[in-house]
Amino acid sequence: MNTHIVRSYDEDLKYLGNRLAAMGGHAERMVDQAVSALVNSDAGLAKKVIADDEFLDETQREIDDKAILLIAKRQPMAGDLRQVIGTIRISADLERVGDLGKNIAKRVVAVTEARQPLSLFRGLQALAELALTQLKEVLDVYASRSVERLTFMRDRDDQIEAMYTSLFRELLTYMMEDPRNIAPCTHLLFCAKNIERIGDHATNIAETIYYVVTGEQMPIERPKEDNSHNVVVEQGKG
Amino acid sequence: MNTHIVRSYDEDLKYLGNRLAAMGGHAERMVDQAVSALVNSDAGLAKKVIADDEFLDETQREIDDKAILLIAKRQPMAGDLRQVIGTIRISADLERVGDLGKNIAKRVVAVTEARQPLSLFRGLQALAELALTQLKEVLDVYASRSVERLTFMRDRDDQIEAMYTSLFRELLTYMMEDPRNIAPCTHLLFCAKNIERIGDHATNIAETIYYVVTGEQMPIERPKEDNSHNVVVEQGKG
Repeated sequence: MNTHIVRSYDEDLKYLGNRLAAMGGHAERMVDQAVSALVNSDAGLAKKVIADDEFLDETQREIDDKAILLIAKRQPMAGDLRQVIGTIRISADLERVGDLGKNIAKRVVAVTEARQPLSLFRGLQALAELALTQLKEVLDVYASRSVERLTFMRDRDDQIEAMYTSLFRELLTYMMEDPRNIAPCTHLLFCAKNIERIGDHATNIAETIYYVVTGEQMPIERPKEDNSHNVVVEQGKG
Repeated sequence: MNTHIVRSYDEDLKYLGNRLAAMGGHAERMVDQAVSALVNSDAGLAKKVIADDEFLDETQREIDDKAILLIAKRQPMAGDLRQVIGTIRISADLERVGDLGKNIAKRVVAVTEARQPLSLFRGLQALAELALTQLKEVLDVYASRSVERLTFMRDRDDQIEAMYTSLFRELLTYMMEDPRNIAPCTHLLFCAKNIERIGDHATNIAETIYYVVTGEQMPIERPKEDNSHNVVVEQGKG
């Protein structure tokens, strides 16, 4: 009897883990495709990404309901309880990642009104690649529970921030060159910010995993804010 | 004995509710003061807001730990369990509201490099007032559990979106008038977006409260994204 309960509980947990993995893969793909749509002015792909978001909303609700049911039914203790709560938290982060991807996709039309220089797109792509690698890695850690790998992520956090700030600066400069660039570049600025926030969600997930596995708060001071707030681009003053 | 457990459990719940209320008041004040600092170029106040954020980070951690301990210790069922989970979710939203306030405060110096027109600041203040009213109201609903009031919030959501989109447009126009406005207005754009996101967090909290009280998902379709993604400001083309 007892084994039965234990096995069935494990199955419930495993099911939640699988749904979470499905959300992770889906969210990654949405962001990847949103950035592709942006770079290639592909309105059709953008539309697909926007429609794809529904899966994440639905699956988050499903995970929430099942997780709460699981707690009520099984009354798990300590580590198990943390794991279920962790599922709720991580699914909320992944749902937000999908929203950010959708928001990028929604800007595709406005951005492609005017042709933007290739270097901007390359910068966005590189930023997205970095943020998605961060997300993928953190989800791998979730699957393998090897929290010692989380400490290596901090470097990439710094890289994402640095790349975002430099892209921010480049976009501003480009806006100053020609007022016709202002509206589309503003949208690109928000796209960059969205990608940077994906890195932030990856960090949230890392913290949750650390907490789930160890029962402690992650000891590393995290850089939660981007550094672009003090970017002031100097104009050539006559 | 049984009464003792019940009362003590209620006390635990009440304590969590009080901490949450403290977070709410603190977050509201931070946002309010960040916008004041922006409008009055008050670097000292901005610094205070940035330092104030720590309280929210700490209190969120405290609420999380206590909530999980409470579930493990008391193994609450149904409505009580939803309430504890709700506390975890709402505290995460309030912590993010504080982050958004801090981010506005961090931009004060960059914005005040150049003097911005009064109408922009008035617009930001009006937007902040609306978003903070939304947040305050939703926290009142949390305290009173009168979920029927949540349905009235939808109108204000629409108002916030409309006001944000119009501010977005105004900022773009202003950037086109003079390239020296671009850098500071970009920061104002992000400030406006931050304030709009506070409204979004208020909506999240409303959904959580609805779920806590009724056990169902809130039936209203919510507008989760702003409409500024398709703003294209036409230039006078020669």
